[in-house]
Amino acid sequence: MCAALTHPVNTQGWGGRGRDETDRQTERERERERERDLGACIQTGWVQTLGPSQAGFGKVGRSGELSAWSGPSCSQRHEQRRVRRPASLTLWDEEDFQGRRCRLLSDCANASERGALRRVRSVKVENSAWVAYEYPDFQGQQFILEKGDYPCCGAWSGSSGHHSNQLLSFRPVLCANHRDSCVTLFEGENFQGCKFELSDDYPSLPSMGWASKDVGSLKVNSGAWVAYQYPGYRGYQYVLEQDRHSGEFHTYSEFSTQAHTRQLQSIRRVQH
Amino acid sequence: MCAALTHPVNTQGWGGRGRDETDRQTERERERERERDLGACIQTGWVQTLGPSQAGFGKVGRSGELSAWSGPSCSQRHEQRRVRRPASLTLWDEEDFQGRRCRLLSDCANASERGALRRVRSVKVENSAWVAYEYPDFQGQQFILEKGDYPCCGAWSGSSGHHSNQLLSFRPVLCANHRDSCVTLFEGENFQGCKFELSDDYPSLPSMGWASKDVGSLKVNSGAWVAYQYPGYRGYQYVLEQDRHSGEFHTYSEFSTQAHTRQLQSIRRVQH
Repeated sequence: MCAALTHPVNTQGWGGRGRDETDRQTERERERERERDLGACIQTGWVQTLGPSQAGFGKVGRSGELSAWSGPSCSQRHEQRRVRRPASLTLWDEEDFQGRRCRLLSDCANASERGALRRVRSVKVENSAWVAYEYPDFQGQQFILEKGDYPCCGAWSGSSGHHSNQLLSFRPVLCANHRDSCVTLFEGENFQGCKFELSDDYPSLPSMGWASKDVGSLKVNSGAWVAYQYPGYRGYQYVLEQDRHSGEFHTYSEFSTQAHTRQLQSIRRVQH
Repeated sequence: MCAALTHPVNTQGWGGRGRDETDRQTERERERERERDLGACIQTGWVQTLGPSQAGFGKVGRSGELSAWSGPSCSQRHEQRRVRRPASLTLWDEEDFQGRRCRLLSDCANASERGALRRVRSVKVENSAWVAYEYPDFQGQQFILEKGDYPCCGAWSGSSGHHSNQLLSFRPVLCANHRDSCVTLFEGENFQGCKFELSDDYPSLPSMGWASKDVGSLKVNSGAWVAYQYPGYRGYQYVLEQDRHSGEFHTYSEFSTQAHTRQLQSIRRVQH
Protein backbone atom coordinates (compact mmCIF):
# COMPACT_ATOMS: atom_id res chain seq x y z
CA MET A 1 0.00 0.00 0.00
CA CYS A 2 1.50 3.29 -1.08
CA ALA A 3 0.91 6.56 0.73
CA ALA A 4 2.44 8.32 -2.23
CA LEU A 5 2.13 11.72 -3.82
CA THR A 6 3.48 11.85 -7.34
CA HIS A 7 4.81 15.03 -8.88
CA PRO A 8 5.48 14.99 -12.62
CA VAL A 9 7.61 18.09 -12.44
CA ASN A 10 11.08 18.77 -13.74
CA THR A 11 12.67 20.02 -10.53
CA GLN A 12 15.94 21.91 -10.52
CA GLY A 13 17.53 20.00 -7.70
CA TRP A 14 16.02 19.85 -4.25
CA GLY A 15 15.60 23.61 -4.09
CA GLY A 16 13.31 23.55 -7.10
CA ARG A 17 10.50 21.85 -5.23
CA GLY A 18 7.11 23.16 -4.52
CA ARG A 19 5.47 25.97 -6.42
CA ASP A 20 5.29 24.42 -9.88
CA GLU A 21 1.91 24.66 -11.55
CA THR A 22 1.82 20.92 -12.13
CA ASP A 23 2.67 20.04 -8.55
CA ARG A 24 -0.30 18.13 -7.21
CA GLN A 25 0.51 18.61 -3.51
CA THR A 26 -2.14 21.02 -2.26
CA GLU A 27 -1.72 23.87 0.18
CA ARG A 28 -3.86 21.91 2.62
CA GLU A 29 -1.48 18.98 2.55
CA ARG A 30 1.45 21.31 3.13
CA GLU A 31 -0.36 22.88 6.06
CA ARG A 32 -1.02 19.44 7.55
CA GLU A 33 2.66 18.58 7.18
CA ARG A 34 3.73 21.78 8.92
CA GLU A 35 1.37 21.03 11.77
CA ARG A 36 2.68 17.50 12.10
CA ASP A 37 6.28 18.72 11.93
CA LEU A 38 5.78 21.17 14.74
CA GLY A 39 3.25 19.49 16.93
CA ALA A 40 4.26 15.98 17.88
CA CYS A 41 6.60 14.80 20.56
CA ILE A 42 10.08 13.51 19.78
CA GLN A 43 11.52 10.54 21.64
CA THR A 44 14.94 10.30 20.12
CA GLY A 45 16.56 13.70 20.60
CA TRP A 46 16.23 17.44 20.29
CA VAL A 47 15.42 18.92 16.91
CA GLN A 48 15.93 22.56 16.20
CA THR A 49 12.92 24.42 14.85
CA LEU A 50 14.46 27.16 12.74
CA GLY A 51 13.16 28.61 9.52
CA PRO A 52 14.26 26.92 6.30
CA SER A 53 16.93 29.49 5.51
CA GLN A 54 18.62 29.31 8.90
CA ALA A 55 21.40 26.83 9.49
CA GLY A 56 21.29 25.03 12.81
CA PHE A 57 24.41 23.92 14.66
CA GLY A 58 25.27 22.96 18.20
CA LYS A 59 27.02 20.54 20.46
CA VAL A 60 25.80 16.99 20.41
CA GLY A 61 26.40 14.46 23.15
CA ARG A 62 26.42 10.69 22.90
CA SER A 63 22.67 10.39 22.75
CA GLY A 64 22.30 12.91 19.97
CA GLU A 65 20.96 15.60 22.26
CA LEU A 66 21.74 19.18 21.30
CA SER A 67 23.33 20.58 24.44
CA ALA A 68 24.75 23.96 23.49
CA TRP A 69 24.81 26.37 20.57
CA SER A 70 28.12 27.83 19.62
CA GLY A 71 29.86 29.89 16.96
CA PRO A 72 29.67 33.61 16.23
CA SER A 73 26.69 33.49 13.89
CA CYS A 74 24.72 31.25 16.22
CA SER A 75 24.85 33.45 19.26
CA GLN A 76 21.13 34.10 19.23
CA ARG A 77 19.14 31.70 21.36
CA HIS A 78 16.70 29.43 19.63
CA GLU A 79 13.84 27.73 21.27
CA GLN A 80 14.45 23.98 21.30
CA ARG A 81 11.32 21.90 21.19
CA ARG A 82 10.84 18.18 21.41
CA VAL A 83 9.47 17.40 17.97
CA ARG A 84 8.90 13.97 16.50
CA ARG A 85 8.62 14.53 12.79
CA PRO A 86 6.53 12.05 10.84
CA ALA A 87 8.39 9.74 8.48
CA SER A 88 8.77 11.14 4.98
CA LEU A 89 10.91 10.40 1.98
CA THR A 90 10.92 11.60 -1.64
CA LEU A 91 11.88 9.50 -4.66
CA TRP A 92 12.93 10.73 -8.13
CA ASP A 93 13.20 8.75 -11.32
CA GLU A 94 16.41 10.50 -12.40
CA GLU A 95 19.72 11.03 -10.63
CA ASP A 96 20.40 14.25 -8.72
CA PHE A 97 16.75 14.75 -7.77
CA GLN A 98 15.57 15.33 -11.34
CA GLY A 99 12.52 14.12 -13.24
CA ARG A 100 9.24 12.81 -11.84
CA ARG A 101 8.98 12.51 -8.11
CA CYS A 102 6.93 10.69 -5.50
CA ARG A 103 6.66 11.38 -1.80
CA LEU A 104 6.09 8.58 0.72
CA LEU A 105 4.69 9.01 4.21
CA SER A 106 4.31 5.32 5.15
CA ASP A 107 4.94 1.78 3.86
CA CYS A 108 5.06 1.38 0.08
CA ALA A 109 5.05 -2.23 -1.13
CA ASN A 110 5.64 -1.37 -4.78
CA ALA A 111 6.76 2.05 -5.93
CA SER A 112 6.03 1.19 -9.55
CA GLU A 113 2.31 0.71 -8.92
CA ARG A 114 -0.54 3.18 -8.54
CA GLY A 115 1.05 6.00 -10.48
CA ALA A 116 4.26 6.04 -8.53
CA LEU A 117 7.64 5.88 -10.24
CA ARG A 118 8.70 3.26 -12.77
CA ARG A 119 12.22 3.38 -11.37
CA VAL A 120 14.11 5.16 -8.59
CA ARG A 121 17.39 6.91 -9.28
CA SER A 122 17.66 9.33 -6.36
CA VAL A 123 16.18 9.61 -2.88
CA LYS A 124 15.95 12.24 -0.19
CA VAL A 125 15.01 11.17 3.34
CA GLU A 126 13.41 14.13 5.08
CA ASN A 127 12.42 12.47 8.35
CA SER A 128 12.88 9.23 10.22
CA ALA A 129 14.97 6.30 9.02
CA TRP A 130 13.71 3.99 6.23
CA VAL A 131 14.50 0.59 4.79
CA ALA A 132 14.45 0.26 1.02
CA TYR A 133 14.20 -3.14 -0.69
CA GLU A 134 15.35 -4.30 -4.07
CA TYR A 135 12.03 -6.02 -4.92
CA PRO A 136 8.31 -5.38 -4.24
CA ASP A 137 6.68 -6.54 -1.00
CA PHE A 138 9.81 -5.87 1.05
CA GLN A 139 11.84 -8.63 -0.58
CA GLY A 140 15.47 -8.88 -1.60
CA GLN A 141 18.45 -6.81 -0.54
CA GLN A 142 17.87 -4.19 2.15
CA PHE A 143 19.30 -0.69 2.20
CA ILE A 144 19.15 1.48 5.30
CA LEU A 145 18.31 5.09 4.43
CA GLU A 146 18.80 7.64 7.19
CA LYS A 147 18.04 11.34 6.89
CA GLY A 148 20.01 12.94 4.07
CA ASP A 149 20.54 13.03 0.32
CA TYR A 150 21.12 10.01 -1.95
CA PRO A 151 21.68 11.47 -5.43
CA CYS A 152 22.47 8.15 -7.17
CA CYS A 153 22.32 4.41 -6.54
CA GLY A 154 25.97 4.44 -5.47
CA ALA A 155 24.89 6.48 -2.47
CA TRP A 156 22.73 3.78 -0.91
CA SER A 157 24.62 0.60 -1.70
CA GLY A 158 26.97 -0.73 0.95
CA SER A 159 29.84 -1.61 -1.36
CA SER A 160 30.61 -2.07 -5.03
CA GLY A 161 29.88 -5.78 -4.93
CA HIS A 162 26.41 -5.37 -3.48
CA HIS A 163 24.75 -2.46 -5.18
CA SER A 164 21.31 -2.40 -6.65
CA ASN A 165 20.04 -0.17 -9.42
CA GLN A 166 16.48 -0.71 -8.34
CA LEU A 167 14.61 0.06 -5.16
CA LEU A 168 10.97 -0.99 -5.28
CA SER A 169 9.57 -1.12 -1.75
CA PHE A 170 10.07 1.17 1.23
CA ARG A 171 9.06 1.33 4.87
CA PRO A 172 10.03 3.39 7.93
CA VAL A 173 12.30 1.62 10.41
CA LEU A 174 10.42 0.43 13.48
CA CYS A 175 11.38 1.48 16.99
CA ALA A 176 14.73 3.08 16.24
CA ASN A 177 16.04 4.19 19.60
CA HIS A 178 19.51 5.60 19.37
CA ARG A 179 19.66 6.42 23.07
CA ASP A 180 18.98 2.99 24.52
CA SER A 181 19.66 0.22 22.01
CA CYS A 182 20.76 -3.28 22.96
CA VAL A 183 21.40 -6.44 20.94
CA THR A 184 22.77 -9.89 21.84
CA LEU A 185 24.75 -11.90 19.30
CA PHE A 186 24.92 -15.70 19.56
CA GLU A 187 27.54 -18.04 18.18
CA GLY A 188 25.04 -20.72 17.11
CA GLU A 189 21.53 -20.85 15.65
CA ASN A 190 18.51 -20.65 18.01
CA PHE A 191 20.40 -18.58 20.56
CA GLN A 192 22.88 -21.35 21.37
CA GLY A 193 26.53 -21.11 22.26
CA CYS A 194 28.49 -18.17 23.51
CA LYS A 195 26.95 -14.73 23.34
CA PHE A 196 27.96 -11.09 23.14
CA GLU A 197 25.77 -8.21 24.36
CA LEU A 198 26.23 -4.82 22.67
CA SER A 199 24.89 -1.33 23.26
CA ASP A 200 27.16 0.72 20.99
CA ASP A 201 28.23 0.84 17.35
CA TYR A 202 30.93 -1.67 16.35
CA PRO A 203 32.64 -1.05 12.98
CA SER A 204 34.77 -4.13 13.62
CA LEU A 205 33.38 -6.99 15.68
CA PRO A 206 36.69 -8.91 15.35
CA SER A 207 38.57 -6.04 16.99
CA MET A 208 36.21 -6.23 19.97
CA GLY A 209 36.93 -9.89 20.66
CA TRP A 210 34.30 -11.67 18.53
CA ALA A 211 36.49 -14.48 17.29
CA SER A 212 34.27 -15.73 14.47
CA LYS A 213 33.33 -13.93 11.26
CA ASP A 214 29.82 -15.40 11.58
CA VAL A 215 26.80 -14.81 13.78
CA GLY A 216 24.42 -17.78 14.19
CA SER A 217 21.43 -15.91 15.66
CA LEU A 218 20.65 -12.69 17.47
CA LYS A 219 18.12 -10.99 19.74
CA VAL A 220 17.32 -7.29 19.50
CA ASN A 221 16.49 -6.35 23.08
CA SER A 222 15.73 -2.71 22.25
CA GLY A 223 15.93 -0.31 19.35
CA ALA A 224 16.86 -1.08 15.75
CA TRP A 225 20.23 -2.13 14.36
CA VAL A 226 21.95 -2.59 11.01
CA ALA A 227 24.35 -5.50 10.70
CA TYR A 228 26.86 -5.70 7.84
CA GLN A 229 28.81 -8.46 6.16
CA TYR A 230 32.18 -6.69 6.20
CA PRO A 231 33.99 -4.43 8.71
CA GLY A 232 33.41 -0.69 8.43
CA TYR A 233 29.68 -1.03 7.58
CA ARG A 234 30.12 -2.51 4.11
CA GLY A 235 28.63 -5.36 2.12
CA TYR A 236 25.17 -6.84 2.64
CA GLN A 237 23.02 -4.88 5.09
CA TYR A 238 20.40 -6.34 7.43
CA VAL A 239 18.01 -4.09 9.34
CA LEU A 240 17.08 -5.80 12.61
CA GLU A 241 14.31 -4.32 14.76
CA GLN A 242 12.92 -5.12 18.18
CA ASP A 243 9.34 -4.99 16.82
CA ARG A 244 9.90 -7.41 13.94
CA HIS A 245 10.06 -11.16 14.67
CA SER A 246 9.72 -10.00 18.32
CA GLY A 247 13.35 -9.02 17.97
CA GLU A 248 14.33 -12.69 17.64
CA PHE A 249 16.29 -13.88 14.61
CA HIS A 250 16.80 -17.61 15.08
CA THR A 251 19.02 -18.15 12.05
CA TYR A 252 20.82 -16.02 9.51
CA SER A 253 18.12 -16.69 6.91
CA GLU A 254 15.75 -14.61 9.06
CA PHE A 255 18.03 -11.58 8.81
CA SER A 256 16.60 -10.96 5.33
CA THR A 257 14.55 -12.69 2.65
CA GLN A 258 17.77 -12.92 0.70
CA ALA A 259 20.53 -13.42 3.27
CA HIS A 260 23.41 -14.98 1.37
CA THR A 261 25.75 -15.44 4.28
CA ARG A 262 25.83 -15.61 8.06
CA GLN A 263 29.00 -13.53 7.95
CA LEU A 264 28.61 -10.36 10.05
CA GLN A 265 31.64 -8.22 10.84
CA SER A 266 30.13 -4.87 11.84
CA ILE A 267 26.93 -3.67 13.49
CA ARG A 268 25.49 -0.29 14.49
CA ARG A 269 22.39 1.36 15.87
CA VAL A 270 19.89 3.01 13.57
CA GLN A 271 19.58 6.72 14.07
CA HIS A 272 16.45 8.80 13.64
CA MET B 1 59.28 2.13 2.75
CA CYS B 2 57.77 -1.30 3.01
CA ALA B 3 58.08 -3.53 6.07
CA ALA B 4 56.81 -6.45 4.02
CA LEU B 5 57.18 -10.21 4.04
CA THR B 6 56.19 -11.81 0.75
CA HIS B 7 54.94 -15.38 0.54
CA PRO B 8 54.57 -16.91 -2.93
CA VAL B 9 52.33 -19.70 -1.69
CA ASN B 10 49.01 -20.94 -2.98
CA THR B 11 47.11 -20.80 0.25
CA GLN B 12 43.78 -22.58 0.69
CA GLY B 13 41.94 -19.70 2.27
CA TRP B 14 43.16 -18.13 5.48
CA GLY B 15 43.42 -21.47 7.25
CA GLY B 16 45.87 -22.76 4.67
CA ARG B 17 48.58 -20.43 5.82
CA GLY B 18 51.84 -21.38 7.34
CA ARG B 19 53.52 -24.75 6.90
CA ASP B 20 54.08 -24.69 3.15
CA GLU B 21 57.64 -25.54 2.10
CA THR B 22 57.87 -22.38 0.05
CA ASP B 23 56.69 -20.13 2.84
CA ARG B 24 59.65 -17.90 3.62
CA GLN B 25 58.43 -16.84 7.04
CA THR B 26 60.83 -18.52 9.44
CA GLU B 27 60.04 -20.13 12.76
CA ARG B 28 62.01 -17.33 14.40
CA GLU B 29 59.76 -14.72 12.87
CA ARG B 30 56.68 -16.58 14.08
CA GLU B 31 58.15 -16.80 17.56
CA ARG B 32 58.82 -13.07 17.56
CA GLU B 33 55.22 -12.42 16.51
CA ARG B 34 53.88 -14.59 19.31
CA GLU B 35 56.04 -12.75 21.82
CA ARG B 36 54.89 -9.37 20.55
CA ASP B 37 51.24 -10.44 20.56
CA LEU B 38 51.36 -11.53 24.17
CA GLY B 39 53.78 -9.08 25.69
CA ALA B 40 52.88 -5.51 24.96
CA CYS B 41 50.45 -3.22 26.71
CA ILE B 42 47.10 -2.28 25.22
CA GLN B 43 45.68 1.23 25.57
CA THR B 44 42.42 0.79 23.75
CA GLY B 45 40.61 -2.06 25.47
CA TRP B 46 40.75 -5.56 26.82
CA VAL B 47 41.79 -8.35 24.51
CA GLN B 48 41.20 -11.96 25.32
CA THR B 49 44.25 -14.19 25.17
CA LEU B 50 42.84 -17.59 24.25
CA GLY B 51 44.40 -20.24 22.08
CA PRO B 52 43.68 -20.03 18.34
CA SER B 53 40.99 -22.71 18.41
CA GLN B 54 39.00 -21.16 21.23
CA ALA B 55 36.28 -18.66 20.41
CA GLY B 56 36.09 -15.66 22.70
CA PHE B 57 32.83 -13.91 23.56
CA GLY B 58 31.66 -11.58 26.26
CA LYS B 59 29.75 -8.46 27.07
CA VAL B 60 31.03 -5.25 25.64
CA GLY B 61 30.21 -1.82 27.00
CA ARG B 62 30.28 1.52 25.24
CA SER B 63 34.04 1.81 25.34
CA GLY B 64 34.63 -1.61 23.89
CA GLU B 65 35.71 -3.07 27.20
CA LEU B 66 34.92 -6.73 27.77
CA SER B 67 33.03 -6.71 31.02
CA ALA B 68 31.63 -10.23 31.48
CA TRP B 69 31.82 -13.62 29.88
CA SER B 70 28.58 -15.43 29.26
CA GLY B 71 27.10 -18.49 27.54
CA PRO B 72 27.40 -22.13 28.49
CA SER B 73 30.62 -22.90 26.67
CA CYS B 74 32.31 -19.80 28.06
CA SER B 75 31.81 -20.57 31.71
CA GLN B 76 35.49 -21.13 32.30
CA ARG B 77 37.33 -18.03 33.43
CA HIS B 78 39.98 -16.66 31.15
CA GLU B 79 42.71 -14.33 32.19
CA GLN B 80 42.20 -10.95 30.56
CA ARG B 81 45.36 -9.07 29.87
CA ARG B 82 45.91 -5.58 28.53
CA VAL B 83 47.64 -6.33 25.25
CA ARG B 84 48.43 -3.80 22.56
CA ARG B 85 49.04 -5.85 19.48
CA PRO B 86 51.41 -4.36 16.91
CA ALA B 87 49.81 -3.26 13.65
CA SER B 88 49.74 -6.01 11.02
CA LEU B 89 47.93 -6.64 7.79
CA THR B 90 48.27 -9.25 5.04
CA LEU B 91 47.67 -8.64 1.32
CA TRP B 92 46.94 -11.24 -1.39
CA ASP B 93 47.06 -10.79 -5.14
CA GLU B 94 43.94 -12.91 -5.70
CA GLU B 95 40.46 -12.73 -4.23
CA ASP B 96 39.50 -14.85 -1.21
CA PHE B 97 43.02 -14.83 0.23
CA GLN B 98 44.54 -16.80 -2.63
CA GLY B 99 47.80 -16.46 -4.54
CA ARG B 100 50.96 -14.60 -3.50
CA ARG B 101 50.83 -12.76 -0.23
CA CYS B 102 52.63 -9.96 1.57
CA ARG B 103 52.51 -9.02 5.22
CA LEU B 104 52.88 -5.41 6.38
CA LEU B 105 53.90 -4.30 9.85
CA SER B 106 54.28 -0.56 9.19
CA ASP B 107 53.87 2.10 6.47
CA CYS B 108 54.16 0.86 2.90
CA ALA B 109 54.38 3.64 0.30
CA ASN B 110 54.16 1.31 -2.71
CA ALA B 111 53.05 -2.31 -2.43
CA SER B 112 54.18 -3.03 -5.98
CA GLU B 113 57.83 -2.25 -5.22
CA ARG B 114 60.56 -4.30 -3.54
CA GLY B 115 59.12 -7.70 -4.26
CA ALA B 116 55.71 -6.97 -2.82
CA LEU B 117 52.53 -7.60 -4.79
CA ARG B 118 51.80 -6.30 -8.28
CA ARG B 119 48.16 -5.92 -7.33
CA VAL B 120 45.96 -6.41 -4.27
CA ARG B 121 42.72 -8.38 -4.50
CA SER B 122 42.10 -9.35 -0.87
CA VAL B 123 43.21 -8.09 2.53
CA LYS B 124 43.10 -9.35 6.10
CA VAL B 125 43.70 -6.86 8.91
CA GLU B 126 45.04 -8.77 11.89
CA ASN B 127 45.73 -5.88 14.25
CA SER B 128 45.16 -2.14 14.52
CA ALA B 129 43.27 -0.07 11.97
CA TRP B 130 44.84 0.88 8.64
CA VAL B 131 44.30 3.35 5.81
CA ALA B 132 44.74 2.06 2.28
CA TYR B 133 45.25 4.43 -0.67
CA GLU B 134 44.48 4.04 -4.33
CA TYR B 135 47.92 5.31 -5.46
CA PRO B 136 51.53 5.09 -4.19
CA ASP B 137 52.82 7.54 -1.58
CA PHE B 138 49.48 7.73 0.21
CA GLN B 139 47.70 9.51 -2.63
CA GLY B 140 44.20 9.20 -4.05
CA GLN B 141 41.08 7.72 -2.52
CA GLN B 142 41.31 6.50 1.05
CA PHE B 143 39.80 3.31 2.44
CA ILE B 144 39.58 2.65 6.17
CA LEU B 145 40.44 -0.97 7.00
CA GLU B 146 39.61 -2.12 10.51
CA LYS B 147 40.31 -5.59 11.89
CA GLY B 148 38.60 -8.27 9.81
CA ASP B 149 38.47 -9.95 6.41
CA TYR B 150 38.19 -8.17 3.04
CA PRO B 151 37.97 -10.98 0.46
CA CYS B 152 37.43 -8.73 -2.60
CA CYS B 153 37.60 -5.06 -3.59
CA GLY B 154 33.85 -4.74 -2.99
CA ALA B 155 34.57 -5.28 0.69
CA TRP B 156 36.64 -2.11 1.18
CA SER B 157 34.89 0.38 -1.08
CA GLY B 158 32.29 2.62 0.49
CA SER B 159 29.72 2.39 -2.27
CA SER B 160 29.36 1.24 -5.85
CA GLY B 161 30.13 4.68 -7.22
CA HIS B 162 33.42 4.99 -5.41
CA HIS B 163 35.19 1.67 -5.51
CA SER B 164 38.76 1.07 -6.46
CA ASN B 165 40.24 -2.09 -7.88
CA GLN B 166 43.70 -1.06 -6.76
CA LEU B 167 45.22 -0.36 -3.39
CA LEU B 168 48.89 0.63 -3.55
CA SER B 169 49.92 2.26 -0.28
CA PHE B 170 49.06 1.44 3.31
CA ARG B 171 49.68 2.84 6.77
CA PRO B 172 48.36 2.24 10.29
CA VAL B 173 45.88 4.85 11.53
CA LEU B 174 47.45 7.25 13.99
CA CYS B 175 46.12 7.77 17.51
CA ALA B 176 42.83 5.91 17.15
CA ASN B 177 41.16 6.28 20.51
CA HIS B 178 37.69 4.83 20.52
CA ARG B 179 37.15 5.63 24.17
CA ASP B 180 37.74 9.36 24.11
CA SER B 181 37.39 10.82 20.63
CA CYS B 182 36.27 14.36 19.87
CA VAL B 183 35.92 16.37 16.67
CA THR B 184 34.55 19.84 15.88
CA LEU B 185 32.90 20.53 12.53
CA PHE B 186 32.78 24.09 11.14
CA GLU B 187 30.39 25.57 8.63
CA GLY B 188 33.05 27.60 6.80
CA GLU B 189 36.67 27.18 5.80
CA ASN B 190 39.43 28.07 8.32
CA PHE B 191 37.23 27.24 11.30
CA GLN B 192 34.75 30.01 10.61
CA GLY B 193 31.02 30.08 11.11
CA CYS B 194 28.87 27.91 13.27
CA LYS B 195 30.34 24.76 14.75
CA PHE B 196 29.27 21.36 16.00
CA GLU B 197 31.25 19.30 18.54
CA LEU B 198 30.88 15.52 18.41
CA SER B 199 32.08 12.64 20.54
CA ASP B 200 30.01 9.76 19.12
CA ASP B 201 29.34 8.10 15.78
CA TYR B 202 26.81 9.89 13.55
CA PRO B 203 25.45 7.87 10.60
CA SER B 204 23.33 10.88 9.64
CA LEU B 205 24.56 14.37 10.43
CA PRO B 206 21.34 15.89 8.98
CA SER B 207 19.26 13.93 11.48
CA MET B 208 21.30 15.40 14.32
CA GLY B 209 20.62 19.01 13.35
CA TRP B 210 23.47 19.77 10.93
CA ALA B 211 21.47 21.75 8.40
CA SER B 212 24.01 21.74 5.56
CA LYS B 213 25.24 18.78 3.52
CA ASP B 214 28.72 20.34 3.55
CA VAL B 215 31.49 20.80 6.10
CA GLY B 216 33.88 23.71 5.47
CA SER B 217 36.65 22.71 7.89
CA LEU B 218 37.18 20.59 10.98
CA LYS B 219 39.41 20.07 13.99
CA VAL B 220 40.14 16.63 15.43
CA ASN B 221 40.57 17.29 19.13
CA SER B 222 41.32 13.67 19.99
CA GLY B 223 41.37 10.27 18.37
CA ALA B 224 40.85 9.43 14.71
CA TRP B 225 37.66 9.71 12.67
CA VAL B 226 36.32 8.68 9.27
CA ALA B 227 34.03 11.14 7.51
CA TYR B 228 31.83 10.05 4.59
CA GLN B 229 30.13 11.80 1.71
CA TYR B 230 26.72 10.13 2.16
CA PRO B 231 24.62 9.09 5.17
CA GLY B 232 25.14 5.61 6.56
CA TYR B 233 28.94 5.65 6.05
CA ARG B 234 28.88 5.49 2.25
CA GLY B 235 30.65 7.27 -0.59
CA TYR B 236 34.06 8.93 -0.38
CA GLN B 237 35.90 8.23 2.88
CA TYR B 238 38.30 10.61 4.64
CA VAL B 239 40.44 9.42 7.55
CA LEU B 240 41.07 12.38 9.87
CA GLU B 241 43.57 12.01 12.72
CA GLN B 242 44.61 14.20 15.60
CA ASP B 243 48.30 13.59 14.82
CA ARG B 244 48.12 14.55 11.15
CA HIS B 245 47.95 18.25 10.20
CA SER B 246 47.89 18.75 14.02
CA GLY B 247 44.30 17.62 13.73
CA GLU B 248 43.44 20.80 11.77
CA PHE B 249 41.83 20.54 8.34
CA HIS B 250 41.36 24.13 7.14
CA THR B 251 39.48 23.28 3.95
CA TYR B 252 37.90 20.25 2.38
CA SER B 253 40.88 19.81 0.03
CA GLU B 254 42.96 18.88 3.09
CA PHE B 255 40.65 15.97 3.90
CA SER B 256 42.41 13.98 1.18
CA THR B 257 44.77 14.48 -1.74
CA GLN B 258 41.78 13.80 -3.94
CA ALA B 259 38.79 15.27 -2.12
CA HIS B 260 36.15 15.78 -4.79
CA THR B 261 33.53 17.37 -2.61
CA ARG B 262 33.05 19.14 0.71
CA GLN B 263 29.86 17.13 1.16
CA LEU B 264 29.96 15.16 4.44
CA GLN B 265 26.82 13.49 5.73
CA SER B 266 28.14 10.90 8.22
CA ILE B 267 31.13 10.59 10.54
CA ARG B 268 32.38 7.99 13.00
CA ARG B 269 35.27 7.14 15.30
CA VAL B 270 37.97 4.72 14.17
CA GLN B 271 38.15 1.58 16.21
CA HIS B 272 41.28 -0.38 17.00
